Amino acid sequence: MSAPIVVDNVAALRAQIRNWRRDGLKVALVPTMGALHDGHISLVKIALEEAERCVVSIFVNPTQFAPTEDLDKYPRQLARDLDRLREAGAHLAYTPGVADMYPAGFATKISVGGPSAGLETDFRPTFFDGVATVVAKLFLQAAPDCAVFGEKDYQQLCVVRQLCRDLDLPVEIIGAPTVRDSHGLAMSSRNAYLSEAERGVARKLNVVLRQTAAELASGADEASAVGEAAEALVRAGFRKVDYVAAREAVTLAPWRQDRDGRLLAAAWLGTTRLIDNVEIPGA
Amino acid sequence: MSAPIVVDNVAALRAQIRNWRRDGLKVALVPTMGALHDGHISLVKIALEEAERCVVSIFVNPTQFAPTEDLDKYPRQLARDLDRLREAGAHLAYTPGVADMYPAGFATKISVGGPSAGLETDFRPTFFDGVATVVAKLFLQAAPDCAVFGEKDYQQLCVVRQLCRDLDLPVEIIGAPTVRDSHGLAMSSRNAYLSEAERGVARKLNVVLRQTAAELASGADEASAVGEAAEALVRAGFRKVDYVAAREAVTLAPWRQDRDGRLLAAAWLGTTRLIDNVEIPGA
Repeated sequence: MSAPIVVDNVAALRAQIRNWRRDGLKVALVPTMGALHDGHISLVKIALEEAERCVVSIFVNPTQFAPTEDLDKYPRQLARDLDRLREAGAHLAYTPGVADMYPAGFATKISVGGPSAGLETDFRPTFFDGVATVVAKLFLQAAPDCAVFGEKDYQQLCVVRQLCRDLDLPVEIIGAPTVRDSHGLAMSSRNAYLSEAERGVARKLNVVLRQTAAELASGADEASAVGEAAEALVRAGFRKVDYVAAREAVTLAPWRQDRDGRLLAAAWLGTTRLIDNVEIPGA
Repeated sequence: MSAPIVVDNVAALRAQIRNWRRDGLKVALVPTMGALHDGHISLVKIALEEAERCVVSIFVNPTQFAPTEDLDKYPRQLARDLDRLREAGAHLAYTPGVADMYPAGFATKISVGGPSAGLETDFRPTFFDGVATVVAKLFLQAAPDCAVFGEKDYQQLCVVRQLCRDLDLPVEIIGAPTVRDSHGLAMSSRNAYLSEAERGVARKLNVVLRQTAAELASGADEASAVGEAAEALVRAGFRKVDYVAAREAVTLAPWRQDRDGRLLAAAWLGTTRLIDNVEIPGA
């Protein structure tokens, strides 16, 4: 595979995409914060099935980190990321700087209600404002036909769909299944923070969620089931559980047993916060 | 002139604009709330100078009215508006319904800081959120090359410019001079609410602003000059003055005498609120 074109400004990005569009080529965008792993690469592969050209943005977005969070230590490894994108066959890497995305005087915020209520928002209250604003900017900069987001960040996927529907952003949103290691641990850039021992504990997150989702699907009482799941995570070695919650799969409204649902969780291992989610099959 | 095409849904709007774009035609948008007067028609004429096709949206946007404001009595006169657009040579009138713009479950809000601070926001705190959100939607629905906004709503013009810059909305914003009657009264749909006697008083607004701007430009003390302007408006018959304020012309930050400024005011005549603004020439 040839190396991807690397551009770091919106004028060059638009010029390249305009050329592709003039040639009748469909363009997919994969927004990332870099530190690319197999999960991201699976998004690139889906993008290449959906479109003739794949643009990957790499931008560690400061506005979706709270002051107490890991912005400074978030892994940055551009050269390695570009190698991985070359192997995967991505056509363009868009690597804007913070001052390009948020120039002096920047003053606009997009807030998406609906699926952003609760879950992550209870613990990271400004997170989805940061996500919605940067995603809208990336969509308006690149004007892709479609964009691929991982189901790993399931609430984010729902928020981005709502954003596009509400603002009439003409971008098709494609959700991609979570990529897991052989023990079921969801791929995440934050797994890099885990010790070997913590990694063993982390693998229990998916096990507990799968088990609880199966119980819910067979009619278990919701409050007891999610309560027991949270206790099981603490017994397994998680320091703190932010939430385990069953939600309706599309709107993230409270789950009803006759609807397709999603079981979502966030929990802490030492100073690392992990999230995961699994399907609750409808009755 | 032939009658404009009338479309009431985004699919038909996009199909027509796509056809024009395929033919290489530049498209301008003039967003309005209907009740078209000579001010709006001047925007259409500027649009037709800038672009080969002019789209006028007519949508009384509920989200920019507070519960206490005049949403229900805001003048609606579509047949007359379409006649005026035909005379002016506009090519398309886009007339979506409230349920088209804000379908059930709509949950997204755009907040623009910077120039939205103070002035109108002190009295209509959610107004510019409503404006920014609907303007972004209209831009994303129509994807015009440029859009024309009147300087009559000067703070709105500055907020829309900031919105486009911050979100990378690829639409050129063109500000159009305020159209006035022979006595200097700025054209406004809300002038329809005024009695003949009130109209006589309303005409003083522009006179006082011009005089005060001239004094400021010649070095008058700012606090005294705007205070006297407010008093002069009350003496002339205005019931209440919301603000008279000098601001920097682009950012709407506090004015400095060495910069181009704008003198803005809002005042009440009975139950009707009028706004106006004039240039303060730089020293």
